[in-house]
Amino acid sequence: MILVVGPNPAIDRTAVVDRLEFDTVLRPSRVLVQPGGKGLNVARAAHALGALVVSTGIVGGHGGRWLLEAAASEGLSPRFVETDVETRTTYVVLDDHGKSVLVYEPSGAVPASAVDELLALLERELMPLAERVVFAGSLPVGAPEDTYARAIGLARRAHRPSLLDTTGAALVAGISAAPDVVKVSLEEATGAGVAPQRSAALDAARAIVARGPGAAIVTDGARGAAASDGRTGWRIGAAPVDPVDTIGSGDAFTAGLLVALGAGLHFDEALTWGAAAGAANAARLGAGHLDPAVHAAAVPAVRLERLDDPRR
Amino acid sequence: MILVVGPNPAIDRTAVVDRLEFDTVLRPSRVLVQPGGKGLNVARAAHALGALVVSTGIVGGHGGRWLLEAAASEGLSPRFVETDVETRTTYVVLDDHGKSVLVYEPSGAVPASAVDELLALLERELMPLAERVVFAGSLPVGAPEDTYARAIGLARRAHRPSLLDTTGAALVAGISAAPDVVKVSLEEATGAGVAPQRSAALDAARAIVARGPGAAIVTDGARGAAASDGRTGWRIGAAPVDPVDTIGSGDAFTAGLLVALGAGLHFDEALTWGAAAGAANAARLGAGHLDPAVHAAAVPAVRLERLDDPRR
Repeated sequence: MILVVGPNPAIDRTAVVDRLEFDTVLRPSRVLVQPGGKGLNVARAAHALGALVVSTGIVGGHGGRWLLEAAASEGLSPRFVETDVETRTTYVVLDDHGKSVLVYEPSGAVPASAVDELLALLERELMPLAERVVFAGSLPVGAPEDTYARAIGLARRAHRPSLLDTTGAALVAGISAAPDVVKVSLEEATGAGVAPQRSAALDAARAIVARGPGAAIVTDGARGAAASDGRTGWRIGAAPVDPVDTIGSGDAFTAGLLVALGAGLHFDEALTWGAAAGAANAARLGAGHLDPAVHAAAVPAVRLERLDDPRR
Repeated sequence: MILVVGPNPAIDRTAVVDRLEFDTVLRPSRVLVQPGGKGLNVARAAHALGALVVSTGIVGGHGGRWLLEAAASEGLSPRFVETDVETRTTYVVLDDHGKSVLVYEPSGAVPASAVDELLALLERELMPLAERVVFAGSLPVGAPEDTYARAIGLARRAHRPSLLDTTGAALVAGISAAPDVVKVSLEEATGAGVAPQRSAALDAARAIVARGPGAAIVTDGARGAAASDGRTGWRIGAAPVDPVDTIGSGDAFTAGLLVALGAGLHFDEALTWGAAAGAANAARLGAGHLDPAVHAAAVPAVRLERLDDPRR
């Protein structure tokens, strides 16, 4: 089972309109509403690839209860801490011409007790059942910056491999706890200062590994991704795809990687699975949605270039 | 008490961002979440002007329960029919430069039984308690086009004056039931074919009254509004205001008009109150929010021109 920790989930609404324009009433032809935030996107994509998942985090209010029901009905086995702080919304408007509006609302302030409860739930109930643990997305307002760092420590003590995908101060603190894998975008890596400004993705991955994690994967949009484990570096080409909706492709990458590792594949094969999952996600509307057949077809199309990392 | 019937409410989310741009993640500095849809906007504005209101319509699911709690805490005395069809969302993004994105989601399909239940609730419980009844906004998917027409008939039999503000087929059917007042925008009137194309607002109001209603008010954005009761016509200037958020100003107009009529003012004074309420709404963020002091100050600033209607 893959345990997906996304402490700051959202209700994702994706509205599809003919033509996105300012200052005029848009009446969407279709609205997709689903549990969202990076964690639930990873969980959805991993589930689509056949993995058993348990999803956790902090939800609240009426929106939180909706999210739990919807996540359960998708097979994402939600085991969340509940508060009375209404779960936030993420709103995406897409039009037929490729234009989008993306609004990521902040969370309400969660009580410190909810974070403690989440860490206790992880340690006592969820990590013992998990094969690997992923920490994905932002922390809610009110959660200390070292929340992921503490959780990564719990995973290590439970001998569970961990993957971290977050930004900013939570990323900096999390890296210092040396998770097994860090996955970030190039922009996030340079933005948080864990890689030098104007790094290439591979250099950024190497810079992150130098801070302690076992491996780092740095994505760079349509230019593909790079990875390093401190001995070997990889450049990973983006699989060819006709993109419908690229939101969640990074989360699908994480899911593909973890599912492959869970299936016993080597790290470089897992990178290929990750890139293929990202491409399959982009081919379908809605973050984390992918067709496993599209994923399987994309795997051999991913170009992987292997390089020795410079001696340290 | 003013009974506000808005059968198709929404959860209104208004996100304020620095700069509204396409294809980039927007992180709002502020998000206002409130019960919305025309009916609840009217109820909020009327409540702000000191009226007792009861709000009704059809809500559903977790979002519906949130809406009922929030409407109750605002003093809007919600008495809604509940279904398990999740209440829709209306999403508005505003920036500091006056640009906006407005997404009006469609409702889910409500069961026919919910509409029957609403009509029964109106007839047996709510109309007997009301001094006047307003029907505002679209009908939910699944509600027959003559829903308002039937409800207007119930109001007449209960001797309760009614006001209708809707669009399209529901407007056409509702007008044929001859409510006491119809209030629409010029665009809605010509769009539904109840006024000739390229009418001025006053001609449109006269055309609507010719179909049976006691009076009609036709708004025309910044150009103000016009009204007719079949004998007298009025041109109503917009009160001067530095607009913050004009969404809901039409609904505030309705509220101001009804509150004035409830206070025993003449129809032409009530028009002035309506225009002042619309201006006060535009001065504050969020549909239906207005400062009664701003309203009171705006009343004497509204210019009202009175004309005899042509003999019929």
